[in-house]
Parts: sequence; structure tokens; C-alpha cells
Amino acid sequence: MTTFDSLDELRSHCLDLPAGDPAAAAAVARHEAELTKPPGSLGRLEEVVAWLAHWQARNPPRLDHVEILVFAGNHGVVAQGVSAYPAEVTAQMVANFAAGGAAINQLARAAGAGLRVVPLALEKPTADFTREPAMDEATFLAAVATGYDAVPREADLVCLGEMGIGNTTAAAAIAAALFGGGGLRWAGRGTGVDDQGLERKRAVIDAALARHAAVFDAPLSIAAAFGGRELAAILGAALATRRWQIPLLLDGFVCTAAVAPLKKLRPDALDHGLAGHVSAESGHRALLDELGLKPLLDLGMRLGEGSGAAVATLVLRAAIACHTGMATFAQAGVSDKS
Amino acid sequence: MTTFDSLDELRSHCLDLPAGDPAAAAAVARHEAELTKPPGSLGRLEEVVAWLAHWQARNPPRLDHVEILVFAGNHGVVAQGVSAYPAEVTAQMVANFAAGGAAINQLARAAGAGLRVVPLALEKPTADFTREPAMDEATFLAAVATGYDAVPREADLVCLGEMGIGNTTAAAAIAAALFGGGGLRWAGRGTGVDDQGLERKRAVIDAALARHAAVFDAPLSIAAAFGGRELAAILGAALATRRWQIPLLLDGFVCTAAVAPLKKLRPDALDHGLAGHVSAESGHRALLDELGLKPLLDLGMRLGEGSGAAVATLVLRAAIACHTGMATFAQAGVSDKS
Repeated sequence: MTTFDSLDELRSHCLDLPAGDPAAAAAVARHEAELTKPPGSLGRLEEVVAWLAHWQARNPPRLDHVEILVFAGNHGVVAQGVSAYPAEVTAQMVANFAAGGAAINQLARAAGAGLRVVPLALEKPTADFTREPAMDEATFLAAVATGYDAVPREADLVCLGEMGIGNTTAAAAIAAALFGGGGLRWAGRGTGVDDQGLERKRAVIDAALARHAAVFDAPLSIAAAFGGRELAAILGAALATRRWQIPLLLDGFVCTAAVAPLKKLRPDALDHGLAGHVSAESGHRALLDELGLKPLLDLGMRLGEGSGAAVATLVLRAAIACHTGMATFAQAGVSDKS
Repeated sequence: MTTFDSLDELRSHCLDLPAGDPAAAAAVARHEAELTKPPGSLGRLEEVVAWLAHWQARNPPRLDHVEILVFAGNHGVVAQGVSAYPAEVTAQMVANFAAGGAAINQLARAAGAGLRVVPLALEKPTADFTREPAMDEATFLAAVATGYDAVPREADLVCLGEMGIGNTTAAAAIAAALFGGGGLRWAGRGTGVDDQGLERKRAVIDAALARHAAVFDAPLSIAAAFGGRELAAILGAALATRRWQIPLLLDGFVCTAAVAPLKKLRPDALDHGLAGHVSAESGHRALLDELGLKPLLDLGMRLGEGSGAAVATLVLRAAIACHTGMATFAQAGVSDKS
């Protein structure tokens, strides 16, 4: 079981990252150029195969074991009336995941992926971050370690998702603290707050930013001050995937905000990650832009649970099928460019 | 076997179209509202299920039998040096399809779809449309009928694709004749012509537009003057899918240009069609805008063969999986909005 004894120790882990294997990506590109299609005509399908090879350090890459990890947590800030749903829905949805009734259950099956749901102390919401830091250091580090250890080392691809009533408020606060702009830039409607709820959410975020401004130069402290346990676990899981050379599919706004502190600590920290989609949650596109991530899909989804990443997995499978199944010009007797 | 004896007869078929079943779409929307997710949070996944139900006239819709139809043809205009590949590649790629070595073979398998390739008189290219109409009326009508009859009436979804060296030039000329703007607006690099080739392609299109300006008020005559047999067959297949209440996934620029005359004849003629993706071929986005079609995917693909539509089929399958597999709030005991 992994433990991080201090923020300093965790930060040193975040700075010490393997580089992947550019040679595997180059081998993919060489083979792509021989396949019976105009060069580059499969667009991002070609890109993602090279990316998978780079971070799996293997050519051709495989998707035999895809794992979707969904972390769940509860948030003290819901007391401020920032969500359209009551806090008990977090636990109810975890039960729904276990029973197989949620969207992610259907999408995991469609994507040929395993699904593991990790609830983090749902009975103990984080503190209301308008009053004090959401998590103390020990709580934060324990949640990061839980996420770190949830990653199966033998996975070929990991999709990260979350469930947590109130967590778009936490995500918006993290994004604001990291990149500036306040509640107006980062707060969206989440599960569907009305205009009044959105105003309240913005004000809550701005008040919290003012309270915790002292930690803005420390990305991990930002994650602890505003995040939830599920966001901390996502950060830990993202770190573990890099450690074990597993490519990572990110999901929506909350998932992306949860890993954003890693990028602030080290600019290439998320190079093994791909944005599965851009969500309809209003801050997501801006956050992806800040992180230099180009989403694979744009389907107006805003559910979380890893749902967008799961759909994106289908595109990766199609890409691998082309790369490994197509004939070369020579094999098929097709004339190359004139 | 279907025959169309005149352009007038074909036009009357194009004007007499079934309307689909809005009640089936409404039933889908009612069920979606009860599923354990914030309303609308699956975005376009919810939209496409309602669209499938509308045009299958069935709730829930099914995707048990998905058929990809790839039509192939050769083009006299290649004599003008508009393509990066020699004309014999059309037949070579048809052989590659038969042998299972092309991208669409892999993508059809990934999409759980049947694949049927229909070569149309590859040994007899259409006429060079810079000199005369590409097809006379009888040739055009026969190709439309071939496409019409290629559609299996029992299909739940049809994806249309094409193969034909030179056919982005034909597609660009059709788009220009229908919507204005000339070679500059509509010509792209196709399979990969260089700057000089692109200039030549634009000039060829503009010269042909000047020669055939007399037919610009007759969409089917435009299709005959500039199209190829495979484009005519796609038009016929699109008409047949509407007749048999089969939703239609369009592919890239050539496929979309092939069906565009139908929309000019009747504004709702393509309502049973969805743009599977927007291609990297430069005219495609403008053409989709002209047709009011919002693409499902944007993956930088520009291969044709039905490849983009095949990948989009995966998204439709994911959408159906959610719609038919998810629990309702009542079933799962999850609290609805507060």
C-alpha cells in the first residue's frame, strides 16, 4: 500500500516521471505510412496509435485490458446550495454503479472495459472550503494514495471518472486558483443549477478564492484546499498510470481539473494523457486550452462518471484495428502516389 | 430491379418521401428523462437515439443490422491531372476491400457492421466533364438505380461510402454548382495533391462550371454533369434508405456532395441522415453548413470508404446501450433534482 508522508514527498514523486518510448511511436508512424491509404488520411486515428505506443513503450500497442476507475466523494461546500441535486445522490449513484444501472456501466461494456468504483469516505464530506481548507494534509495524501493504488499495473489503458455532488464547484475553484479568472470564468451549471444557483456558485468560488489565496503558488495545496477526496484520488491515479507506463484517458471538467495541478508542477506531466472529450460544462474547453489538451470527442456530454472517456475508448479501438489489420501497399498490390 | 426511366421520374421519387415517426422520438425523450442522469447530460447520445427511433419508426431503436455500402467508380476528369494517385488505384482498392486489407474492412468489423462493395463499370470511366457531361441521362439513372437496389430493406442503419480516384474533383464541382463559390471554395487536396495540383484542380472545376452553367437550376442534372457513377449510386441509396425507413450515416466530402442534390430538391430530404463526421477535406465543413448537418465526429479523417461513418456507428451503439440499459431514478432509488 502506497503512502505519501508529506506534500513534499508527493511533490517529489510528481517531478520524477518516466519519459515513455519515442522509438515505439516512430515505429508506428513508419508502419502507418505503408498502409493502403493516403498518408495521414486517418487523422487522429493515426495520432492516437502512436501516442498509445509511446506511453505503452510497445509497438504495436494493445488494448486488451482497459480499466475505467470511478472515484466518488462528498463535498462540504454543498451546504452553500451549489448543486441541483442533494448530497445523498453520491452514495445512491455508487449503489447504482454496483447494480449496473448507470450510464458508465453500459458504456464500459460497450467499450470492452473493466469498471471499478472507489467510494472515498462518503459519510464524511470534506470541509466547506468557503470556511476552511476542504482537506487537511493527511486526508488529502491518503486520498491521493488510494487513487494511486487503484490503478492495475497491467492495464493497457486507464479511463478516469468521478461522481460527487458539488464537485464541479470544487473543480472550478481549482481551475481558478491555478489559472486565474474567478467564478465567472470557471463556474458552469454542473448537473443543472438555474440562473440563481449559478450566481451563488460563482460567489461561493470567489469567496473561497479570497480565503485561500495564500496557497496559490503550491499546486498540491490548491488541490487540498478546494478539491474532494475523489479529485485527489484522480490525481494519484494519473500519477500511477505515468509510473506504470499506462496511457490515460481523461474525462470531463472535474477529472481534468483534478489532474491540472500535476501540469503546473511539471509541464510534461500529462503527456501520457489524452482528453477523451470536451464536455458541455462551460469551463472545460478553457481548461483543456490551458493544459494544451485537444479533445478527441465533442458530443455535448456533461455527465462525468468517466462516460466521455469510455466513448473515446471506442475510437482508440477503431484506430488500433486499422493499424494492426490493414494491408500495406506492397501486400495489396496497390500503386502508391504517382 | 428498380429502373428510373427519366430524370423527371426520378425527381418525382425524390419529392415523395415518408415522414418518419415523431411519436417514436418523443417516446425516447420521455424515457431518457427518467434515466439516472441529469436531463440532457448525455448530449448528442440522447439526440441520436431519438433520431434513430424517429426514422426507424420504432422505440427503442435497434442496431442489429448495420450495413456499410461502398460504391466505386472511375472519372474521366483524372486525365486533367487532378489526383495524387493513378486511376488504376480505384480497381486495386476494390480488390483490397475484397481481400479485407483496407481501413473500412477493419472499421466495419469494429463497428459490428456488414460491408458490401459495389464497383460500377470501373473499366468505363465517366466522360471528362471539362469537355462534356460526365454521364448521359441513361448512365446516370442506371447508377442511381444500382445504388437504390443495393440497400437491404431490413437494415437498421446504412453507412454510405465511396472509392474513386478523382472523385473529390467531381464532388467539389457538384457543391459549387449547387451552392456557388467555384473551385477556390470547394477544391481541396483530396488524397494529397501538392500546391500546383490544387491550382490545377481549381481551374478544372471553374472551367467545367462555365461549360455546364445551363443545368444549374436542375439538381439531378448537376449530379449527372459532374458526378461519377459511385456518387449517383450514393444518391440512389440515400433515396432508398428514406423509402425503407432506414436511418442513414453519411461519410465525408464526396458522400455528402453526392446526396446534396436531394436537399436542393426537397429541404427535408436528408432529415433521415446524420453526418458521421466532418472530414479534413477542406470543403466538407462548408458543405455540411450549407446542408444544415452537424457532424458527430471531427477526427481529421479524409479517407472516404465510409470510414468516418463506420467510426460514428460506434457512438450510436454507445448511445443505444445507455438508452436501453440504464436504470430509472425510481428503479435505482436515486433522488431526483432537489
